[in-house]
Amino acid sequence: MSLPAAFHDIAKRVNNWGRWGADDEIGTLNLITDEVVREAVATVRTGRRIPLALPMKQDGVQTGVMPGRVNPLHTMVQINQELFGPGTVACSDDVVTMGLQAATHWDALTHASHSGMLYNGRPAGTITAHGGAEFSGIDKARHVVSRGVLLDVARARGVARLDGGHAVTPEDLEAAEELTGTRVRAGDVVLVRTGQIQAYLAGDREAYAYPSPGLSVRTPEWFHARDVAAVANDTLTFEIFPPEIEDLWLPVHALDLVEMGMLQGQNWNLEELSTACGEEGRYAFLLSAMPEPFVGGTGTPVAPVAVL
Amino acid sequence: MSLPAAFHDIAKRVNNWGRWGADDEIGTLNLITDEVVREAVATVRTGRRIPLALPMKQDGVQTGVMPGRVNPLHTMVQINQELFGPGTVACSDDVVTMGLQAATHWDALTHASHSGMLYNGRPAGTITAHGGAEFSGIDKARHVVSRGVLLDVARARGVARLDGGHAVTPEDLEAAEELTGTRVRAGDVVLVRTGQIQAYLAGDREAYAYPSPGLSVRTPEWFHARDVAAVANDTLTFEIFPPEIEDLWLPVHALDLVEMGMLQGQNWNLEELSTACGEEGRYAFLLSAMPEPFVGGTGTPVAPVAVL
Amino acid sequence: MSLPAAFHDIAKRVNNWGRWGADDEIGTLNLITDEVVREAVATVRTGRRIPLALPMKQDGVQTGVMPGRVNPLHTMVQINQELFGPGTVACSDDVVTMGLQAATHWDALTHASHSGMLYNGRPAGTITAHGGAEFSGIDKARHVVSRGVLLDVARARGVARLDGGHAVTPEDLEAAEELTGTRVRAGDVVLVRTGQIQAYLAGDREAYAYPSPGLSVRTPEWFHARDVAAVANDTLTFEIFPPEIEDLWLPVHALDLVEMGMLQGQNWNLEELSTACGEEGRYAFLLSAMPEPFVGGTGTPVAPVAVL
Amino acid sequence: MSLPAAFHDIAKRVNNWGRWGADDEIGTLNLITDEVVREAVATVRTGRRIPLALPMKQDGVQTGVMPGRVNPLHTMVQINQELFGPGTVACSDDVVTMGLQAATHWDALTHASHSGMLYNGRPAGTITAHGGAEFSGIDKARHVVSRGVLLDVARARGVARLDGGHAVTPEDLEAAEELTGTRVRAGDVVLVRTGQIQAYLAGDREAYAYPSPGLSVRTPEWFHARDVAAVANDTLTFEIFPPEIEDLWLPVHALDLVEMGMLQGQNWNLEELSTACGEEGRYAFLLSAMPEPFVGGTGTPVAPVAVL
Repeated sequence: MSLPAAFHDIAKRVNNWGRWGADDEIGTLNLITDEVVREAVATVRTGRRIPLALPMKQDGVQTGVMPGRVNPLHTMVQINQELFGPGTVACSDDVVTMGLQAATHWDALTHASHSGMLYNGRPAGTITAHGGAEFSGIDKARHVVSRGVLLDVARARGVARLDGGHAVTPEDLEAAEELTGTRVRAGDVVLVRTGQIQAYLAGDREAYAYPSPGLSVRTPEWFHARDVAAVANDTLTFEIFPPEIEDLWLPVHALDLVEMGMLQGQNWNLEELSTACGEEGRYAFLLSAMPEPFVGGTGTPVAPVAVL
Repeated sequence: MSLPAAFHDIAKRVNNWGRWGADDEIGTLNLITDEVVREAVATVRTGRRIPLALPMKQDGVQTGVMPGRVNPLHTMVQINQELFGPGTVACSDDVVTMGLQAATHWDALTHASHSGMLYNGRPAGTITAHGGAEFSGIDKARHVVSRGVLLDVARARGVARLDGGHAVTPEDLEAAEELTGTRVRAGDVVLVRTGQIQAYLAGDREAYAYPSPGLSVRTPEWFHARDVAAVANDTLTFEIFPPEIEDLWLPVHALDLVEMGMLQGQNWNLEELSTACGEEGRYAFLLSAMPEPFVGGTGTPVAPVAVL
Repeated sequence: MSLPAAFHDIAKRVNNWGRWGADDEIGTLNLITDEVVREAVATVRTGRRIPLALPMKQDGVQTGVMPGRVNPLHTMVQINQELFGPGTVACSDDVVTMGLQAATHWDALTHASHSGMLYNGRPAGTITAHGGAEFSGIDKARHVVSRGVLLDVARARGVARLDGGHAVTPEDLEAAEELTGTRVRAGDVVLVRTGQIQAYLAGDREAYAYPSPGLSVRTPEWFHARDVAAVANDTLTFEIFPPEIEDLWLPVHALDLVEMGMLQGQNWNLEELSTACGEEGRYAFLLSAMPEPFVGGTGTPVAPVAVL
Repeated sequence: MSLPAAFHDIAKRVNNWGRWGADDEIGTLNLITDEVVREAVATVRTGRRIPLALPMKQDGVQTGVMPGRVNPLHTMVQINQELFGPGTVACSDDVVTMGLQAATHWDALTHASHSGMLYNGRPAGTITAHGGAEFSGIDKARHVVSRGVLLDVARARGVARLDGGHAVTPEDLEAAEELTGTRVRAGDVVLVRTGQIQAYLAGDREAYAYPSPGLSVRTPEWFHARDVAAVANDTLTFEIFPPEIEDLWLPVHALDLVEMGMLQGQNWNLEELSTACGEEGRYAFLLSAMPEPFVGGTGTPVAPVAVL
């Protein structure tokens, strides 16, 4: 099997290899300039802060289908331990084991490869067990503060939650954009709301996983045209499952991460944000979503916050 | 052994139990109002972003002295794995095991207890291996975006790095405040720079650990008087080591976390921020330092960012 | 709720506290004398070796119902890494994270407590996050080589696998004993086969877990009367689920581990052994089932082997 | 750099590829026949059991030099937890994270590769992060019970502990053999004692690691000639450090594991065994050293026991 011609056609159109130099490791994050940040800051009116991360816990969103992508396992190594003797101040310490892509997270550009290649034309073999990703590890993506725009596709379509089989198209994104009254522009971080995460929040992990709405293979071109810096949504896989085109698995990962060099986020809880944006009648805000700098990591948990 | 009378005197003066109600779990974070956030946003001028987290890696700051507080161990469970068959899009996945207090982190209010008690008068026994901290887990502290103020004590004293035995006093904080031209006020997150982290950055983990400057037992009263929301610094333990008062270990932890209910941060890299603040001649900025919401966690890695 | 009088009656009859001194930490393992080992060795005729551990892997027997008892997660930190330069000999290294009670395992005597007490009258509070079990950690149980006897209850009852609701009684054990032609005696390690593990081997983890046959609350007295050194079986929980007596959960754990001080093993694969014993017409053999000496561990994975 | 001609000469002489068929995954373990096991059992006289594993704990033998090879980290997820309600039987559960090669362990045949090849002519690329070792994972080596022979080189040379620079030669092995009065033969598991582990037992981890005595590059031919099934010793690396031949790192790993297909063990504590063998005047015994069956593992912790 190899990737179909249709995929390669799109790939050519959205490819950013070399755009920021042969040495570039951060792709579209280059589009978040200081000016973009100033404009992001200028969107803040009320100071209301909306956290977007799911609680980190063992019964998180992972169902066990993805081998090794384990929910956070929280254990204790000290509980009220009087390390300096009886009657002294006591400390508690915890240890966590988790998949870097298991919870609310960013995929690093190196989370996906295709045809043996990673973003900016680097060989897939530059990822090793020894050092992780030699290039474009998540530790390189250290400045993710920008203007956030919520494209509330579920609301724009008048539903609480998109159907499992729904591929979010460029037309959906533009309908949501119209709802916001804010045109997506260069350097924005776009949050696409499908409402799918309601299944998980209601306690049904399996229904959250599958079937799932997600971003259509047609969306990367739209993000490319708008020069978006990063995109996150409220689904497990980012893409629709089962896939849009038979036997074409994860094409959006390959286009966004490998070809464009654009960060993707998954399992972002956009419900409270949707309510807040609806109440305030505006969908642009200051977004801080700093990766934990795992050296060579191909992903990272993230605790994003929108400031309205 | 029990804590000395001098400790209990200070404890009485800084105690915030009940101040925000018997049910409160977040302490001084209550002081970060929406208005404070708006003022924080108003400090931004250039849009320059300074990340404050150390790289997450196995040769991190922990020396092995703190039992179980392990540096991040990064392993791979998938490397360019074509999960859907040969020639399909490939994925890489990572797993991390780490102490929640091992890297650049926040201590939750429950990281310390004394005399069998936690913040807001809860029994120490409410922390269990089963669920972690029943109250005041780090997952409760979900809105840490505020005005940040760098109190650059090293610069105010005209040195690159404070001596190992230096206890940072209220007078030091005020001298640094004067340098900034900004008075610390209610809801601020204060970052205290000692320069100590230079030892780690230069490759000497042991020298970073000990001896170390740190915050004097006299500082909690100053933070309390100013109604500071949270404090972080650039040392391993926050406090000076060896301790200021013989056999009185971790008094500042007990006062800040247990009595005041004020978050503490450690291992924050304030070097680049110090340079930037010096260049721009201002020491107040927008700070986003969102905890990863580990349910019941007594701490969390954090990837803070200052926006100038 | 507290434990019923019926439980306490049995407890009194099987209690071994003080039997091997106030300092004893290994309980009935004291019954494995060198003489017992010599007799165990004398049972060997063919030299055939039967391993009894299930494969260690992420889709192991744990279903996720027991909080934190995670199946083995196997990750790589080195894959063919030429640590000393290109062209040198390469190495591969792995890391595992797992619950000590998750796979084929021994429960340490301290895995259970009741009424605040552990084996030999020690307070439950001697188990801490800091050091694990101060007394009777699994690292103390370092000589588990003895005569093994397979009590093949399923075969004795003429079924492939006992029903989910079946409590294995002393009468069942004696019927199986009769089948073996070998009387269980002091120092033996008894393996009780229910056939339940066939469900897991056939791919049905849920059916393996529940409902399950298991050892009746009446069996501890039988093991006590025979001075058995340790008992293992081929179920997830050792006991029947749902429980024999309404609302009396895990009574056998409390009797075997806390009162008698007798090691319990679970998830032992006795299928191949059953076949071999049937073929050879004898059910006693040399058994080696050495615990991994986790300091303070309340359990351990084990790779037992029967030598026939 | 590539491996020198001298290496390849030896490699040719000890190579066992194809000897047990193209599909073989266990190499010299094939030499442990049922007859060998019966002879092993026949060596037992007193029934005395000597465990050979070091305690599993965070301050184990690893110094941090080997990236990712972490000492066992023991944490708690349940401590006396009354899972079924107050007053019910309580349970304690532990979680461990550790390098499979970190403690007393077996190297799987796939722990080493050279020139892109693994044992029996398989490509190194058959080890992946996804599944570990596709061939010759440690889970395949499930019958390690045989005759053990202690070759007490330190005693034979009349020293408590060999010097750091001492390469154990075939002549050393034969001198030790003479001491035992037992000729090593096909299927034996040979334990080579240098005494080096005394450094670790005395609390000096660094001195244990380096400089270290170890097996000379000349020993694989001797083991091959005797058709030994497996070899373990009491050092961190098995081989001498610094290496015998300049810039030739880990040649014995490549010869034993890759060429011969012979299991290697490290960090075995042979001190108590040495004393016991000296007291009893015999150096052959029944050895059980069953690998934990980690699927695809390139190593495993092991809790070996010698029965005298």
